[in-house]
Amino acid sequence: MTPPLPPQNTPPAPPIAVDLLITARWVLPMAPHGACLEHHAVVVDQGRILDLLPIAAARSLYAPREQSDLGEHALIPGLVNAHAHGAMNLLRGYGDDLPLLRWLRERIWPAEAEHLSEAFVHTGTLLAAREMLRGGVTCVNDMYFYPAAMARAYLDTGLRAIVGLIVIDFPTRYGAGPDDYLARGLASRDRFRDEPTLRFSLAPHAPYTVGDAALLRVAALAEELDLGIHTHLHETRSEIAEHLSAHGCRPLARLHRLGLLSSRLAAVHAVHLEDTEIALLAHHGASVVHCPASNLKLASGFAPAARLLAAGVNVALGTDGAASNNRVDLLSETRLASLLAKGVSGDASAWDAHASLRAATLGGARALGLESRIGSIEPGKQADLTAIKLSAEELQPLHDPAARIVYSAGREHVDAVWVAGHARVRGGCLTAEMPAGLEATVCMWQNRLVSSRIH
Amino acid sequence: MTPPLPPQNTPPAPPIAVDLLITARWVLPMAPHGACLEHHAVVVDQGRILDLLPIAAARSLYAPREQSDLGEHALIPGLVNAHAHGAMNLLRGYGDDLPLLRWLRERIWPAEAEHLSEAFVHTGTLLAAREMLRGGVTCVNDMYFYPAAMARAYLDTGLRAIVGLIVIDFPTRYGAGPDDYLARGLASRDRFRDEPTLRFSLAPHAPYTVGDAALLRVAALAEELDLGIHTHLHETRSEIAEHLSAHGCRPLARLHRLGLLSSRLAAVHAVHLEDTEIALLAHHGASVVHCPASNLKLASGFAPAARLLAAGVNVALGTDGAASNNRVDLLSETRLASLLAKGVSGDASAWDAHASLRAATLGGARALGLESRIGSIEPGKQADLTAIKLSAEELQPLHDPAARIVYSAGREHVDAVWVAGHARVRGGCLTAEMPAGLEATVCMWQNRLVSSRIH
Repeated sequence: MTPPLPPQNTPPAPPIAVDLLITARWVLPMAPHGACLEHHAVVVDQGRILDLLPIAAARSLYAPREQSDLGEHALIPGLVNAHAHGAMNLLRGYGDDLPLLRWLRERIWPAEAEHLSEAFVHTGTLLAAREMLRGGVTCVNDMYFYPAAMARAYLDTGLRAIVGLIVIDFPTRYGAGPDDYLARGLASRDRFRDEPTLRFSLAPHAPYTVGDAALLRVAALAEELDLGIHTHLHETRSEIAEHLSAHGCRPLARLHRLGLLSSRLAAVHAVHLEDTEIALLAHHGASVVHCPASNLKLASGFAPAARLLAAGVNVALGTDGAASNNRVDLLSETRLASLLAKGVSGDASAWDAHASLRAATLGGARALGLESRIGSIEPGKQADLTAIKLSAEELQPLHDPAARIVYSAGREHVDAVWVAGHARVRGGCLTAEMPAGLEATVCMWQNRLVSSRIH
Repeated sequence: MTPPLPPQNTPPAPPIAVDLLITARWVLPMAPHGACLEHHAVVVDQGRILDLLPIAAARSLYAPREQSDLGEHALIPGLVNAHAHGAMNLLRGYGDDLPLLRWLRERIWPAEAEHLSEAFVHTGTLLAAREMLRGGVTCVNDMYFYPAAMARAYLDTGLRAIVGLIVIDFPTRYGAGPDDYLARGLASRDRFRDEPTLRFSLAPHAPYTVGDAALLRVAALAEELDLGIHTHLHETRSEIAEHLSAHGCRPLARLHRLGLLSSRLAAVHAVHLEDTEIALLAHHGASVVHCPASNLKLASGFAPAARLLAAGVNVALGTDGAASNNRVDLLSETRLASLLAKGVSGDASAWDAHASLRAATLGGARALGLESRIGSIEPGKQADLTAIKLSAEELQPLHDPAARIVYSAGREHVDAVWVAGHARVRGGCLTAEMPAGLEATVCMWQNRLVSSRIH
């Protein structure tokens, strides 16, 4: 028996065992801004991103238990839908093409007054969560009633969510008034607070529907419990005018006076802003959630998206609810946001594709106080990832993957989605089957809604 | 042997042999406006629509050689893309996010100066035709150079097309000047004039690029040869200002003076219009081709789409070329047209879903002088049909098929397309395979374009 030869060099370190290795033609990590890496791999372990490096290096350094080789794909951080009302998926198309007040008074409010329930919210939110995951969204910021039903739907589907605990002055089937809403909301939060993919926020509906006392309590609770604040702000001219008569100031000024203006604030819509208000938002580090499709569909106006970015305000993107959009499709909002910002500013270079992708990922993460955990492909962050297939004929030729994603691709090109390292979409389909009875339940709600419609 | 009983009643007429019977859950014929028929059948024979009737009646009256049973689909007239530059599919994404003048001077014009050829136009147009068919378009109004190459590409794919014979004052690789362009164009028309799915039009590029003599000749030829006129009009503020200095009037006034303003005219873009100009277009029965995505992407402005409809102007929809959109996707233009009209007019009931579908079908047909042949599902018209699958989960619940198509569906839901009764798309895929070598040719052009780009 020949004795073994003495080692001549230090042997290579044995490969490190990891959960998952994803390789892609392009990786758009979002940090640094505008970066596009070619032929890179993302290494995932225990739900987090462990490494981002060239494919060849990854193959020699790591021994993955599972591997996902994406060919002509772009891998991006999972999209963050920073404003949604998931349950309203059941109200999709329930009042199209109506003026805002008729839409609310004849359709949305009566439907909510009659049908709001745990079951309605769970089913609607389930539909929305499934639609969002298939469309590349990995995190949603939702505001609606029945937070426990919302939480269950998001846990059922595996979509990361911030459940907004609604506060509103008037009673609904869900609660009696601000104190009751808060008590119920905080109880739901206690029940689900250990769930790693759930967070909670305080969601005063809007300055025109919440009084001073409740807003002051929200501000205090946000500090005490370290929660974000999610509210509608300056969506329509009329709500600002009415607020001026009722309170003697514009809504943002009142939020400021009551202590709600800080980096905790995600102000949704912000369509009508004066320059001083934009400066105020920037100064306090508040975020704006821009919902371009909803603002058009309800004829609310054109948010000053390019001016907000220029002033240094963090801007996120949201779909709003399916009753006012009617696609819960954040990818299409990136296209619309870029196109609209160019049209409104009169500058075709405004809001380039990278700006839209940033708003839909890192911008959303920051608006939700999650920028240390999600929003970019960086080691240490959660493995929330979306793969978009760029090989389709309608996406050729391909000069810049970011522009291709924003301007030409659609959610139908989303091929794979992971949330905290769990594959939720593969080959364009959800990995979870449709829950038994969901289709029939949706049909039942549709029939109930039709029979209760005011004509 | 028992003798046969004498007939007691008139025996039913034997079923009529026809080529094709298509049944669908919903049929949106577009005439009368807003109609939505349930469980109807379209009977097709020799490329035309022979009948439209309830499914049960169709089954007893007709004996089809082929049958297409569409389940939860909506069948609509094929979409008409009333403004495209098909060849520019090869320039998709070649200059995203650049200001208009840099986009033209540094990207589009140099690329065209270097690469324009029969081969370039044929390949680009082929790509565009395939993209349009898959997206439910059955007729396109195209304006570009090398009309014979355009014609061949449309014949190769089976997409109905109006080939615009371009006229422009400056020389290109294709022609020396207006007379040369016209001579070449009319020769191409002579060559292809017997093709049933092809038509030709005169396409003076724009008032600011074509002189009086050529425009007068276009007006005379249009009358003499019974051709439509396809031109860009009032796309940007600057072109109007320059036209004012050069000609002492706005472009539309000059077209009027030179005799081009009539029902033959399809005026593309028409972003900047005064009320008197809208009235003038209406009075003369001219059509406007609205290109919402292109107008936003190039920051041209917001066309007064709701005011045009209110004034009785026929409005069609167009994608423009893939260099300024970058989706050759007319279905997404219907959504954007409705959303934008609401936002611009401040009225959420403006441009409802039916108005957008009409613009994308009958409006387009009328703009192209083809309203007696296409644009609606009516007996006698060509069987240009598009089936959209409405059963997808992201389209539920479903209250109104028209709204669902415009606001929620995407081209990925287009399931079947017929042009003149020929199935061009089945199960979401083109029935024709990709021509051998097309992918490699696109790749070659992409590399050539990159290497000639001015940085």
